[in-house]
Amino acid sequence: MRAAVFEAAGRVGIGEVPDAVLREPTDALVRVVRACVCGSDLWAYRGIIPKAEGSRLGHEFIGVVEAVGGAVSTVGVGDFVIAPFQWSDNTCPACLDGIQTRCDHGGTFGAAGSDGGQGEAVRVPLADGTLVSVPGGLSGVDASLMPSLLALTDVAATGLHGAVLAGVTEGSTVAVVGDGAVGLSAVLGAAKILGAERIILMSRHNNRTELGRAFGATDIVTERGDEGIAQVRDLTDGRGVRHVVEAVGTPESWAMAVGMARVGGTIGAVGVPHTNPQLGIFTPFVQHLTLRFGIAPVRRYLPDLLARVLDGTYNPGAVFDLELPLDRVGDAYAAMSDRRSIKTMLTP
Amino acid sequence: MRAAVFEAAGRVGIGEVPDAVLREPTDALVRVVRACVCGSDLWAYRGIIPKAEGSRLGHEFIGVVEAVGGAVSTVGVGDFVIAPFQWSDNTCPACLDGIQTRCDHGGTFGAAGSDGGQGEAVRVPLADGTLVSVPGGLSGVDASLMPSLLALTDVAATGLHGAVLAGVTEGSTVAVVGDGAVGLSAVLGAAKILGAERIILMSRHNNRTELGRAFGATDIVTERGDEGIAQVRDLTDGRGVRHVVEAVGTPESWAMAVGMARVGGTIGAVGVPHTNPQLGIFTPFVQHLTLRFGIAPVRRYLPDLLARVLDGTYNPGAVFDLELPLDRVGDAYAAMSDRRSIKTMLTP
Repeated sequence: MRAAVFEAAGRVGIGEVPDAVLREPTDALVRVVRACVCGSDLWAYRGIIPKAEGSRLGHEFIGVVEAVGGAVSTVGVGDFVIAPFQWSDNTCPACLDGIQTRCDHGGTFGAAGSDGGQGEAVRVPLADGTLVSVPGGLSGVDASLMPSLLALTDVAATGLHGAVLAGVTEGSTVAVVGDGAVGLSAVLGAAKILGAERIILMSRHNNRTELGRAFGATDIVTERGDEGIAQVRDLTDGRGVRHVVEAVGTPESWAMAVGMARVGGTIGAVGVPHTNPQLGIFTPFVQHLTLRFGIAPVRRYLPDLLARVLDGTYNPGAVFDLELPLDRVGDAYAAMSDRRSIKTMLTP
Repeated sequence: MRAAVFEAAGRVGIGEVPDAVLREPTDALVRVVRACVCGSDLWAYRGIIPKAEGSRLGHEFIGVVEAVGGAVSTVGVGDFVIAPFQWSDNTCPACLDGIQTRCDHGGTFGAAGSDGGQGEAVRVPLADGTLVSVPGGLSGVDASLMPSLLALTDVAATGLHGAVLAGVTEGSTVAVVGDGAVGLSAVLGAAKILGAERIILMSRHNNRTELGRAFGATDIVTERGDEGIAQVRDLTDGRGVRHVVEAVGTPESWAMAVGMARVGGTIGAVGVPHTNPQLGIFTPFVQHLTLRFGIAPVRRYLPDLLARVLDGTYNPGAVFDLELPLDRVGDAYAAMSDRRSIKTMLTP
């Protein structure tokens, strides 16, 4: 089958790879209907973190079940399914704690030994604990909902998780650091799901700013660093915000997040800290901060978010501003890396 | 009047200083009945952080009100009072958030321009928002309760705050990093006030271990570093603990706290990070940790803790294992610095 393959930093192409097949009785085989590129895919593409030549790519996909192993009971052949970016058994202690992204038997699509989402088909381990079926199947879903269903596999839930970690509730004031797809999704989740009243988005890119406003941002701060912090403080009686979503994961974004948090505030951190930024703990200490970290347990949020997409009250798919055929996956990476696209959808 | 004075690293003595006096209508003048030395006082004593020669010392004291300014209404002359280690108005936004240690008008006893607790008398700013009177006055209190009342000024509430930040509740399993007076007080608070079921104390000093057990520790781990982490994991099905109190504030203690926390766990950090340790955020991220920091807002806890001391159900004063007259304050510092004393009480 055809699938995206990592060739070198700055080079992603389509290659012939072994067909996805069932291996375990708990597997499902899913034919990919839509896939996409994640901001975290860009780290290796940009050469910031290493990745082996020939590696498979992508962890976000939706598709139709073609076959299931004998032990699979909750999804069946023909089901239209959403796959979180990691598989999970949904029964181990970590899963029962709601942290399916630390499942005892979990793993990430596209990691060594597994199929990537950017391909024609994917073997899904632990299908019962991983996949969620869309009622009515593929034919029952309006095509306009595809982007939002695809967004549920990672970015929508990751943004929402950031706002949840930050403690956002009805009436909250929250600042979002990062205007990538995750940051924008945090705005949407804070506004439409958690009921935040005031949402300050740090953004200096026009198209992202516009989408941020459409998603519910009430204030835009274009400055960065100390200037950005000062602007957020000006907007909040000089005290800073009680809730901050950190959706980038760099030393610079962390400095901003810590600097704009009010005394006693909470930072919800979902920006993957690929370079392991070092955080001096003196300031969090004297500021009485709470820092809550985590790779979003998408599976936990999926049933609720799916219902919201289907009833039309939640449209996270608006982050997709470019659609390409799978064969042009290299262009998709380039467009996102160059920030010409917020998020790019691929169709096999 | 006489008060402790910082002479140089390793040298604290008693000097003649200007009498404490009322300056503002919101002040109270308190004659010190008992004072003590804090672990955080030792940082300058050991030369780790600088302190000016001639600085006043001490932030923990209980005493009797000798005079009050015209605007003071909640305490009166003759009251026996507990003073938190910082004063606060108890009405500003930070105080209303329960963070009296970030009061808009607050300050720390012993800091430049204020009287230290290690002296004969103290001017207490913002007396109404700061002091809590002991019902019945000095003559109504059994002398055996003095150490516990003195402990309320800082260490008892700081230890408890660590356990509160760590999310300890009825039935919790918690590990406490640090067997100083704060760590031991965290054990007591977790056991007697929050209802923890299992309390693992990291301790390798016999007298501290014994007191830890008396306070409610159910398990003692004597190893440090990776060995200590491994032992805590062995005690918790290999998964680590959901709740960790960090009561030291050094890079080594932080490494242990992060290493022993279960996926999704919470670290409550009350060890003052004098040297601003740097924390790599990759591990907290992949471990889904919550880190909650803060200098204990003693004033918030004081009314409740005072009631518990008076009804005999809570005895945090057992951390005092040495009593000296104020004139021997130098010996008190030396005894604590040499770890010959867990905590030393001073009587003017």
